[in-house]
Amino acid sequence: MQISPLEDKIPVMGAPPSPQVRSEGLHFLDGKRKVDYVLVFHQRRHSSIRSLVSGSVSQDQLSVVSNGNFPPTKGSDPATGRGADILGGEAASVGEVFMELGSAKGSEPMEAIDQEMHLIRQEFEANLLEAGLEIEREKEVKPNGPSFTRIHAPWPVLCREAEFLKIRVPTKASYELKEERGFGSSMSSIWRKLNQPFQPKVSLQDHGSTKFLSHCFSRDKLHLYNISSKDTFFDNATRGRIVYEILRRTVCVRTCQTIGISTLIAKGVYDSAFPLHDGDYKVIGHLEERNDRQVLHEEWARYSAFYKFQPIDLVRKYFGEKVGLYFAWLGVYTQLLVPASIVGIIVFGYGVATVDTNLPSLEMCDERFNFTMCPLCDGACDFWHLSTACGTARASHLFDNPATVFFAIFMSLWAVLFLEHWKRRQISLSFSWDLTGIEEDEEHPRPKYETILLQKRQRKQKTKKKRKKSEPAVDKLTWKDRLPGYFINISSILFMFGLTFSAVFGVIIYRITVSALMAMSPDPETKSNVRVTVTATAVIINLVVILVLDEIYGAVAQWLTELEIPKTETNFEERLIMKAFMLKFMNAYAPIFYVAFFKGRFVGRPGNYVYVFDNYRMEECAPGGCLIELCIQLSIIMLGKQLIQNNIFEIGIPKLKKLIRSLKEKEATPNAREDEKPPQQWNLDYALAPFDGLTPEYMEMIIQFGFVSLFVASFPLAPLFALLNNIIEIRLDAKKFVTELRRPVAARAKDIGIWYNILSGMGKLSVIINAFVISFTSDFIPRLVYQYMYSPSGTMHGFIDHTLSYFNVTNFKPGSAPQNSAHEDVTFCRYKDYREPPWSSDAYQLSKQYWSVLAARLAFVILFQNLVMFLGLIVAWVIPDVPKTIVEQLKREKKLLVNLFLQEEKEKFQLIQSLFTKDSILQSNSQPSNPSQGLPILGRYSTLPSGPAAGDGGGGGPRARCRAASFSQFSGKTCSSPKNENASSRQTAV
Amino acid sequence: MQISPLEDKIPVMGAPPSPQVRSEGLHFLDGKRKVDYVLVFHQRRHSSIRSLVSGSVSQDQLSVVSNGNFPPTKGSDPATGRGADILGGEAASVGEVFMELGSAKGSEPMEAIDQEMHLIRQEFEANLLEAGLEIEREKEVKPNGPSFTRIHAPWPVLCREAEFLKIRVPTKASYELKEERGFGSSMSSIWRKLNQPFQPKVSLQDHGSTKFLSHCFSRDKLHLYNISSKDTFFDNATRGRIVYEILRRTVCVRTCQTIGISTLIAKGVYDSAFPLHDGDYKVIGHLEERNDRQVLHEEWARYSAFYKFQPIDLVRKYFGEKVGLYFAWLGVYTQLLVPASIVGIIVFGYGVATVDTNLPSLEMCDERFNFTMCPLCDGACDFWHLSTACGTARASHLFDNPATVFFAIFMSLWAVLFLEHWKRRQISLSFSWDLTGIEEDEEHPRPKYETILLQKRQRKQKTKKKRKKSEPAVDKLTWKDRLPGYFINISSILFMFGLTFSAVFGVIIYRITVSALMAMSPDPETKSNVRVTVTATAVIINLVVILVLDEIYGAVAQWLTELEIPKTETNFEERLIMKAFMLKFMNAYAPIFYVAFFKGRFVGRPGNYVYVFDNYRMEECAPGGCLIELCIQLSIIMLGKQLIQNNIFEIGIPKLKKLIRSLKEKEATPNAREDEKPPQQWNLDYALAPFDGLTPEYMEMIIQFGFVSLFVASFPLAPLFALLNNIIEIRLDAKKFVTELRRPVAARAKDIGIWYNILSGMGKLSVIINAFVISFTSDFIPRLVYQYMYSPSGTMHGFIDHTLSYFNVTNFKPGSAPQNSAHEDVTFCRYKDYREPPWSSDAYQLSKQYWSVLAARLAFVILFQNLVMFLGLIVAWVIPDVPKTIVEQLKREKKLLVNLFLQEEKEKFQLIQSLFTKDSILQSNSQPSNPSQGLPILGRYSTLPSGPAAGDGGGGGPRARCRAASFSQFSGKTCSSPKNENASSRQTAV
Repeated sequence: MQISPLEDKIPVMGAPPSPQVRSEGLHFLDGKRKVDYVLVFHQRRHSSIRSLVSGSVSQDQLSVVSNGNFPPTKGSDPATGRGADILGGEAASVGEVFMELGSAKGSEPMEAIDQEMHLIRQEFEANLLEAGLEIEREKEVKPNGPSFTRIHAPWPVLCREAEFLKIRVPTKASYELKEERGFGSSMSSIWRKLNQPFQPKVSLQDHGSTKFLSHCFSRDKLHLYNISSKDTFFDNATRGRIVYEILRRTVCVRTCQTIGISTLIAKGVYDSAFPLHDGDYKVIGHLEERNDRQVLHEEWARYSAFYKFQPIDLVRKYFGEKVGLYFAWLGVYTQLLVPASIVGIIVFGYGVATVDTNLPSLEMCDERFNFTMCPLCDGACDFWHLSTACGTARASHLFDNPATVFFAIFMSLWAVLFLEHWKRRQISLSFSWDLTGIEEDEEHPRPKYETILLQKRQRKQKTKKKRKKSEPAVDKLTWKDRLPGYFINISSILFMFGLTFSAVFGVIIYRITVSALMAMSPDPETKSNVRVTVTATAVIINLVVILVLDEIYGAVAQWLTELEIPKTETNFEERLIMKAFMLKFMNAYAPIFYVAFFKGRFVGRPGNYVYVFDNYRMEECAPGGCLIELCIQLSIIMLGKQLIQNNIFEIGIPKLKKLIRSLKEKEATPNAREDEKPPQQWNLDYALAPFDGLTPEYMEMIIQFGFVSLFVASFPLAPLFALLNNIIEIRLDAKKFVTELRRPVAARAKDIGIWYNILSGMGKLSVIINAFVISFTSDFIPRLVYQYMYSPSGTMHGFIDHTLSYFNVTNFKPGSAPQNSAHEDVTFCRYKDYREPPWSSDAYQLSKQYWSVLAARLAFVILFQNLVMFLGLIVAWVIPDVPKTIVEQLKREKKLLVNLFLQEEKEKFQLIQSLFTKDSILQSNSQPSNPSQGLPILGRYSTLPSGPAAGDGGGGGPRARCRAASFSQFSGKTCSSPKNENASSRQTAV
Repeated sequence: MQISPLEDKIPVMGAPPSPQVRSEGLHFLDGKRKVDYVLVFHQRRHSSIRSLVSGSVSQDQLSVVSNGNFPPTKGSDPATGRGADILGGEAASVGEVFMELGSAKGSEPMEAIDQEMHLIRQEFEANLLEAGLEIEREKEVKPNGPSFTRIHAPWPVLCREAEFLKIRVPTKASYELKEERGFGSSMSSIWRKLNQPFQPKVSLQDHGSTKFLSHCFSRDKLHLYNISSKDTFFDNATRGRIVYEILRRTVCVRTCQTIGISTLIAKGVYDSAFPLHDGDYKVIGHLEERNDRQVLHEEWARYSAFYKFQPIDLVRKYFGEKVGLYFAWLGVYTQLLVPASIVGIIVFGYGVATVDTNLPSLEMCDERFNFTMCPLCDGACDFWHLSTACGTARASHLFDNPATVFFAIFMSLWAVLFLEHWKRRQISLSFSWDLTGIEEDEEHPRPKYETILLQKRQRKQKTKKKRKKSEPAVDKLTWKDRLPGYFINISSILFMFGLTFSAVFGVIIYRITVSALMAMSPDPETKSNVRVTVTATAVIINLVVILVLDEIYGAVAQWLTELEIPKTETNFEERLIMKAFMLKFMNAYAPIFYVAFFKGRFVGRPGNYVYVFDNYRMEECAPGGCLIELCIQLSIIMLGKQLIQNNIFEIGIPKLKKLIRSLKEKEATPNAREDEKPPQQWNLDYALAPFDGLTPEYMEMIIQFGFVSLFVASFPLAPLFALLNNIIEIRLDAKKFVTELRRPVAARAKDIGIWYNILSGMGKLSVIINAFVISFTSDFIPRLVYQYMYSPSGTMHGFIDHTLSYFNVTNFKPGSAPQNSAHEDVTFCRYKDYREPPWSSDAYQLSKQYWSVLAARLAFVILFQNLVMFLGLIVAWVIPDVPKTIVEQLKREKKLLVNLFLQEEKEKFQLIQSLFTKDSILQSNSQPSNPSQGLPILGRYSTLPSGPAAGDGGGGGPRARCRAASFSQFSGKTCSSPKNENASSRQTAV
């Protein structure tokens, strides 16, 4: 996949570009060397004044320090009209460069801090040069704006680092993927044809039936790789990663004792550092010459492509494995939501279809039964007829029917299936992306950690001087140093938990008081709308609270994690995720938990109600059951959260930020001559928002997964809404990555890390929660118990009557009986509970029915939980983690690799033998003219073995030795840099 | 650790041994080359007649084919008086040897099958020679007995294969383990002193504070390893493994199309194949010169060492990792049983201490309460007083008290802790045994599989000829081929499940009928002992049935797994384990499950009893509760199983087998001249029983783990008995391995495999089972419910009265009332159940109490299960899988290795530079005199780099290159054979 030049897109002002200049801003000024990374720093205002004065003088002056084969272009390119300072090549003695840079600027007047930063930058960039990178710098073009340092990694550096990083690259060897025959073949071709319209139009190497063997890059084995061009052998993402790796480990010893670019950014030495995008994302010219970014934009990052599969391989190629895994995960999740949605719709449809034949709701609506219910509030409320609540009863049946139980089991297994499926996909991806066996790189400590460690050391040294004792050197922070952090952490988290709970409680109080007040209002219109008004407003308040706290908690979690002073970035991320997840989870689900398990359970009974704040009765569930309330709560929070977060936080706020930034930029440079020259790619990219991790994206999805799995028993349509949201979400995220963010460094990752654990934990939690929702929140168990234990006819006839207890109206406490009752003749009113009737010996005590129903509910929980856990274990056991095809392919690849190298060893041996017989001398100075064509003999066969060992007892002929050697090198899955067998050195052993 | 010579132990008859002959039977006849492996085959009787005749002629004749540096000793050693045929060295053309062997014997008269076997042996051994092994053979010494082919692996073969197998060996580099300072140090030294008497007296390399870095063996890096002697660098177990590896993959093409020694053994070509023990296990001479086997025997494999830790490292060194892991696991399990036992004893002690203050049992024993109970059988039995059951009530309290609940939670967490602890230990071991990153070797198919595949191919070819269609070649067995096997499997397993259940049911019937018959007996003595007699005999019957079925099921599982035709040995083992475990688990626990959850639950009530077989009433639990019965059942089965299996199956039967074998041997060779010459080590080892896997050992322990974890709530002393058993078991197994079994091939294993999953599954199951035992089998919940819901005083007073329902004796069905009652005045009798009294409106219906207790029981199950699961998750999360010290050591080792090789690369580079400046020519013929001292220059530095690359832009100086190269080699945890960097081949790339 070659990067097409962008000549036709970016308008070039002034002189037409010379043929070498292939595209604006993607290469150095020579038009040859790719810009692999950009470092940005801001010139301060005071120095900018100076440069405004001197700028016009030095603007056209180029100072190039280079001893590569690139001709020095000092002042040779006046046509471009831009100043550039190119430094490259290792032979330019580092000290020299440093001195030169130092003397050139050291004499000018600058403030101390700026001076220091300047020196740090000089040393750092000198060290980059030493590491082999090449650097191009603009000479104070922009007086007050950002200054860009462009970095190019030449081929030898790429090779070195690729070997170091064990980057796997395709070899020349390829093999045919197994073709299915007969029935399977025709099926798969039909499948492929059916899939055609859903496939994105992306051409990638490995498509089709052949697969190239890949192997860790090694400079010894260059002849094995398919190197068509040194410029494109490593794609841009890999190049960026390689440069980042060097930036990360380059030290800065003299001017500041730090290591790596991230510390320098934290110290403010640099503003930011990023690899460049592949060019503009808008396609203007021919469709064939699209660069990867354009392809992604066309085929992936647009809403009209919503029905297509994602070009995951290209995403990975462009953004790296970590981002690729995120989108792959999102894709798998979305795909698996499809069956869940379908089943959810069917279950909902079952509810709709059976609502007219459902006996309990029919009995409730039937006015002939004439159940006189006890008043809903003290004094002001009157007795009422159950048939007036017919609507909620019917609505309740839509969600609370036997199919829901099936759906809950289905969704619990679905969660297991989803995790298993993802595990497989992850392994498939890590196979096709050659991630098997990559190891965690050792990480440098975070800047914050280092600063605090330094402070501790200094403190210790002071006390040491005082005490004059030999204490062990301080080499790490212990729990003692972190104690205050932990303390603040725990107290803050507890405080925030309290905050969440009080928010929930506040809403409850709001509901209770408002409904009591409205019930007392004389207006009948108000009275009749009490429930609807209160529920709706309360849920909206809940939603707003959740959204606000969500943002606050995100920031607080960040702050708290900083206080813990985690050592490495991974460590930081993990702790942050755990904290943020805990807080956000609590926040999002606390009101739902309340409605599901606590609302309406502490009401008391007529004549003995539970009161809060003196005379507000605890709230009850709707007459149709608590499930319908849970359903309303869940659906509004879920939909509201998704819609608002998508629209405002993901689209609105970034746009706003961008606007503000561009306004600021303009303000800062009122006399900018932007119209004078076209913006370079680095200018364009710098204008984009920086990439700051995938955590928010994952977090949003995981919370959504909670809505889909945790309370799915109460809302079968949740998967459908999640599906609709995700279809948009994928494209929204894609758009963000392609058009609105700077290109992230292509980070490697084997898996999605801690998110998998969180998902799996939620899956487990969902089993028990759904068990409780079905048995305690829904009416499923009472109905079953009635039908099989109490019903005289064995049907549901009389169920409503059975669930309502009697209350003797004379037993009302003084003042709590209805004051202006329209029902004068009432002696008994009914209420929903299982209690002994007033004429029983222990009146109003919990009845035998209550205990039998409770036992049945609890038994159901045990049964459900253990059944689902058992089925889950079976599902996880039946689905192998590694797909069979992958296992077979791995075996095959291993075999092929062994054969490949066996062949090579054999050839080598034959060559050596023929050389020995001819007794000729090797030409040791053969020119390596073109490495991809001529295979210089010396390179591969320079080791001179003294023939097969004929020592003591001589084990194994040459063949055996070859086999053993190549086996030991290539039977490993991990990258073991293959070595040229050193037959002569072996001889020393024999 | 050097292998000490055994001169002083084995009595040598005849001439005194020459100085070279270091020990009898551990070396070839030259006394130098170690016998690493022995192949045994039996001469048939007919040929033995021949050799009896010709034996005396050829006995002293030695034919040695060898071109190593070992001088041909043809007939030069008549003093030994034994014929030997030594073949060695690769240059002895294989064809030649084959021809020679063929012509030497081909002409003699033999039966066809024997002839064929002989030819196969010849080809196989010729191929072994080609692979570099050296072979010594006796020339028909024993006419009718076993013939031994001794195999020796010379140094080059060992090197080659060690590289191939990626065997890790210690390098010269070592590092100090971090010493704790201050308080920690003194604590650990105290700890060490306290531990001193428990440490076995074993000296091993790595002991102390230094640890040698280990690295995969590579012939390029010989100078890095600590090679003091080529004979002892690889220990005997490793040598055995290396030879086995060659034996396993050596093919036999001409005479029979098979691969590997195991197929040949299966075909009967060889009788057996095993590596030799290190000598005799009895120490006769000095203690200092003990060989490993003797050390193991002294310090490990004796009962008097029961209090000591196991010398696991030595066990691993001698028997290999797989056996080492078994004993390490057994050790961890036994150690962790200590705290469990202590807590169990305390819990039991609590029961003993509180038995006199326990109100329910006091009330039961109090004669003043005078509960008249309903008769236990129809007609014959009389009413009885509850106080007569005082004994069982008191006994019941010992096991059924609140502490039991705590103990059940404790033991569930203990199981989690055990698994986590073992995980850590396993990782520590795999670190110190250098097992990190070993891969599964590709396995050859089992002989059975190959045979059936061959048959299938032949069948297919026939049908192919008929149909003349081009079908795909048969390359594996599909499910179609296995269908009959699966069918038989499933039906057999179902049949055996049925068998187990009917055995359990049979014992129930026995109990019911016998107790009914005994109750009817006129003898009052018989009557009073009914319960004791019946229970005791029934449990013993159960035990016998379990023991018998256990053995049968073991054999059946083997047979069934063969029917499934698994492809590889690992596959076979896994399937066998699953099947055997399922059957044995069922068998051992079915009666216990019955007592725990079913006994006494289907009794019915007075006046409406449940009858089986017309007029036998279902059995009830003892008046003290079901838990005491469960306890008796569990303890007898557990103890009986352990005692009988240990004594009879593990000690008795092997002894018997040995006796029979030796008797047979004697019978077969009546005229053996055994007294004539001392038995060689291979004779001694051949007389031992073959090693046939660890499956039975693991299985026994896992079933025991079930007793300890599954029903531990009912029998807190189970861990104690398990502990006592295991202390013996370890030494018993050790004795077996050291003295009674042939030495197993030192197999590598990373973990204990499927057993871990089984253990973890049992841990999970134990949670739910214990929850049910506590809530349903014990009286814990009814007591709680009574105390907090029904007790008028809030104490346990009146609990017994509360649990007993009333029965009006006039409601007895005709004939079921007591016929000769001593209690004439009884109008109401009591029975244990929660039912409405006769005077209630719904008499004898389950009462409200029943339902409330049931609800409480179920709630407890939910609470217990989820609490324990949650705590288990926390425990597993808190304990990191990899110990911190290991993580740190790994990091340190990685760094050290990198430094080591960096140093080397630097030296090399400097050397090259100095050579270049001197412009001198390397001596290419330097003699590799002593590999451990002189480092021949050519071996390590024969690559001739043309100086630092000065190509286009030249990235990275030599230093950078060195760093990159060595990093890429040694940062891997897995064995990546390090390569000598080929600087010149790199140049081709630049």
